[in-house]
Amino acid sequence: MLRFIIVQNKEINVVEKVVSLAKRRGFVFQSSEIYGGLNGCWDYGPLGVELLKNIKEEWWRFMTYRDDVEGLDASILMHPKVWQASGHVDNFSDPMIDCKQCKSRYRLDTLSEQINDKKKEKYFQEMKENLNPDNLAKLLQLEANSENLDKLYEAIFENKELSESILGFLNCPNCGTKGNFTEPRSFNLMFKTFVGPLESSENIVYLRPETAQGIFVNFLNVQNASRQKLPFGIAQIGKAFRNEINTKNFLFRTREFEQMEMQYFVKPEDDKKHYDYWKSKRLEWYTNLGISSEKLRYHDHPADKLAHYAKEATDIEYLFPFGWGEVEGIHNRTNFDLSRHEEYSGKSQKYFDEETKEKFIPFIIETSAGASRGFMMFLVDAYDEEVVEGETRVVLRFHPRIAPIKAAIFPLVKKDGMPEIAREIESELRPFLRVFYDDKGAVGRRYRRQDEAGTPFCITIDTQTLEDGTVTLRERDSMQQVRVQKENILTELLKRLK
Amino acid sequence: MLRFIIVQNKEINVVEKVVSLAKRRGFVFQSSEIYGGLNGCWDYGPLGVELLKNIKEEWWRFMTYRDDVEGLDASILMHPKVWQASGHVDNFSDPMIDCKQCKSRYRLDTLSEQINDKKKEKYFQEMKENLNPDNLAKLLQLEANSENLDKLYEAIFENKELSESILGFLNCPNCGTKGNFTEPRSFNLMFKTFVGPLESSENIVYLRPETAQGIFVNFLNVQNASRQKLPFGIAQIGKAFRNEINTKNFLFRTREFEQMEMQYFVKPEDDKKHYDYWKSKRLEWYTNLGISSEKLRYHDHPADKLAHYAKEATDIEYLFPFGWGEVEGIHNRTNFDLSRHEEYSGKSQKYFDEETKEKFIPFIIETSAGASRGFMMFLVDAYDEEVVEGETRVVLRFHPRIAPIKAAIFPLVKKDGMPEIAREIESELRPFLRVFYDDKGAVGRRYRRQDEAGTPFCITIDTQTLEDGTVTLRERDSMQQVRVQKENILTELLKRLK
Repeated sequence: MLRFIIVQNKEINVVEKVVSLAKRRGFVFQSSEIYGGLNGCWDYGPLGVELLKNIKEEWWRFMTYRDDVEGLDASILMHPKVWQASGHVDNFSDPMIDCKQCKSRYRLDTLSEQINDKKKEKYFQEMKENLNPDNLAKLLQLEANSENLDKLYEAIFENKELSESILGFLNCPNCGTKGNFTEPRSFNLMFKTFVGPLESSENIVYLRPETAQGIFVNFLNVQNASRQKLPFGIAQIGKAFRNEINTKNFLFRTREFEQMEMQYFVKPEDDKKHYDYWKSKRLEWYTNLGISSEKLRYHDHPADKLAHYAKEATDIEYLFPFGWGEVEGIHNRTNFDLSRHEEYSGKSQKYFDEETKEKFIPFIIETSAGASRGFMMFLVDAYDEEVVEGETRVVLRFHPRIAPIKAAIFPLVKKDGMPEIAREIESELRPFLRVFYDDKGAVGRRYRRQDEAGTPFCITIDTQTLEDGTVTLRERDSMQQVRVQKENILTELLKRLK
Repeated sequence: MLRFIIVQNKEINVVEKVVSLAKRRGFVFQSSEIYGGLNGCWDYGPLGVELLKNIKEEWWRFMTYRDDVEGLDASILMHPKVWQASGHVDNFSDPMIDCKQCKSRYRLDTLSEQINDKKKEKYFQEMKENLNPDNLAKLLQLEANSENLDKLYEAIFENKELSESILGFLNCPNCGTKGNFTEPRSFNLMFKTFVGPLESSENIVYLRPETAQGIFVNFLNVQNASRQKLPFGIAQIGKAFRNEINTKNFLFRTREFEQMEMQYFVKPEDDKKHYDYWKSKRLEWYTNLGISSEKLRYHDHPADKLAHYAKEATDIEYLFPFGWGEVEGIHNRTNFDLSRHEEYSGKSQKYFDEETKEKFIPFIIETSAGASRGFMMFLVDAYDEEVVEGETRVVLRFHPRIAPIKAAIFPLVKKDGMPEIAREIESELRPFLRVFYDDKGAVGRRYRRQDEAGTPFCITIDTQTLEDGTVTLRERDSMQQVRVQKENILTELLKRLK
């Protein structure tokens, strides 16, 4: 039911609607669409690029317009030893299988997503009949501990023997062929390329799979240049790349994406305090921008599921139409990363505490948000339909600060001096706000087009403007109109946008 | 002489000074420095990331805050057919030679940059003695047409027979070994990688070597979504990658860089008009941001040197300390790109003119600026030293709109309520401006640190503030101070920053 909203007793598939609106109105296009697209890559169109810019700018101001956080923009290509130190060369891989018949490729740990519930029941029965007593006992224990079928299957595919057993009779989700898969093998998710003309192993570089390492290797450079003392953070927005086996859900899991990460360097004994601070601070960012707290939750990682570098970790999850999905991770990464870089580079990564005269490697609290995923969240969250005067109105209820266009300006008709006044207002607003001028078609249609674009305010110049110098200011969500003296429009808008 | 400025009768090597200041103050660090760096890749530190953001934001507003230009943010990875259609797979390569002795690699067409003038004279004599009459005649003709030795050598290396002859006795610029080079061979400058786990030719994708193609393949998507009519443009800022054989001059030629490109789609018969408009408009952008017009010039490409896609082309060049260098290109690309994409994709790229009912492929006027190169230009242009009260003052004279920090706030001493007032002013300014609070050390030293960061304004809270509520507002370039009522600081700053 999460997948739908109800309009006039009809269920609406939100993701489908949003993907279609996104293309039609220029939020998101498929990359290289005229060549059939490139799987897992997307282009942001005229409205999308503004929405994405606004999201990133809001994050940047929230995170770096404070005394204790510095900005950084590190390059995407880095020295390959960075990824040895970080553990990505050895460990950043997914288990993968191929159907020998149709050559479809699956990520083993997420294969269950592609099997429907009926099939899951059927396979479960078959497994029970075929397993040896030891493995059967394991399976029944997993069943007892799993709250539903999805969780049970996730657990099955995490277990080597059980997954081998089920692969023996599983139908390929694509071609239906039974039990004809390759052995699971691990596949590193980093894209690699070569610097210089020789394609030899010593010239391999990787497209960064996360922006965090660019921050870690610059820790002392930034600290020296900024003269910061602990605790302080380094924030960065930038692209990262993962050679995903299966992409899915529009912008949710893509091969090229943008991250907004902040690494906060602290004294080891203060880690809990700062972890708790950022955990609550980061949730605040989403609610500040209009996401309802009912659609947000923390998912704390249990101790036995923590990543190798983490002491404590939580995800901020948003209730997408397809279920809860991670939009940000907050991690206590301990001194893992800096210690590894010290070891691999042979350069001390220690911080010198001037007060206590001690040298030590700081702990790091990480806040790692997806800009592309956040974009998708804000877009589906904003989507709404309602019936107004017998017609369906599609409206994107963006928070005004992230809306791509802040105000649209309409002369009611293209004569009587209305266009001239409208153009005057446009040039007065333009230095401060992204505005849009439209004089085409009936004014009602123009309002609807701006509703679909998520524009919070529309200004119309009409016959009364010619008489008393007032214009109408119409608010997107309530559709209420007030008359404002045209000289005061900028002040009125800035007041509402604050 | 261009390389130097004179301070107290001493010559200063500006590039050396800027590179050192850039690291010390956190404008630019070498990528992966703790691992010895990655050639041709740089990281922007706390001050650098703000300067770069401001440059990009100024460009974005100048180029897209108008009715006829839409924004776009296309992905870096694109379908490989894009680069076949664009000609990059076949033609985007440089001629390359290796020294067989020391394995140093050189780009043949820029090899002359690595030979000093004395050597150039010597080789020229040797060539004259050794060449056959035909080639000697060619050489003498090139000499007659070249304004200086540099130009002559460029021409020599563009000629196959002459470059083979000179390579026969040239000393390797690195190890000095004479005439021991490989044959020139062409090397494609696109970084390539593989999508999916199979490293087979059908899975090759490239890191885009320019952002322009992302715009071309989205032409009709953007036009449909935005309902623009010709003429209109699409603007984009983003990273591009070139596997350069030799990187050089700090940020001037790097392997990873950022571009700011706008493609303006026009009726074929109007191409000249729009080319001339953008040529002059783009120069205006640089002078608006404080670059002296004496340090800017056009370099029009002669007809016989135009790229295969261009009908007319000019570079905007800036007088770097190492000589004139391109910071932007303006090109009439004709209908080349869209025609090729129509041919390779099989999808019509024609524009339908509603008035004349005609269908045709538009011409494209391109403005292509380097954000990374522009960053370097603004940084070296801003660099200045002067002697003040017997001490050298280093000051970055950035235009206030691109300065990383807009205002610094100093309590004269850390007592008597001055810090409290300073913090109050800080929080009043912060929502509007990037500000910096500093209470460490003598106020004179604090001013100098801000001069080095290019901060246009400093606000000091002193004993008089406690008496009459005024603070000093000090201007970076003139070092003049005026007293301003503390309540009016924001208004005064915004007035000066406009």
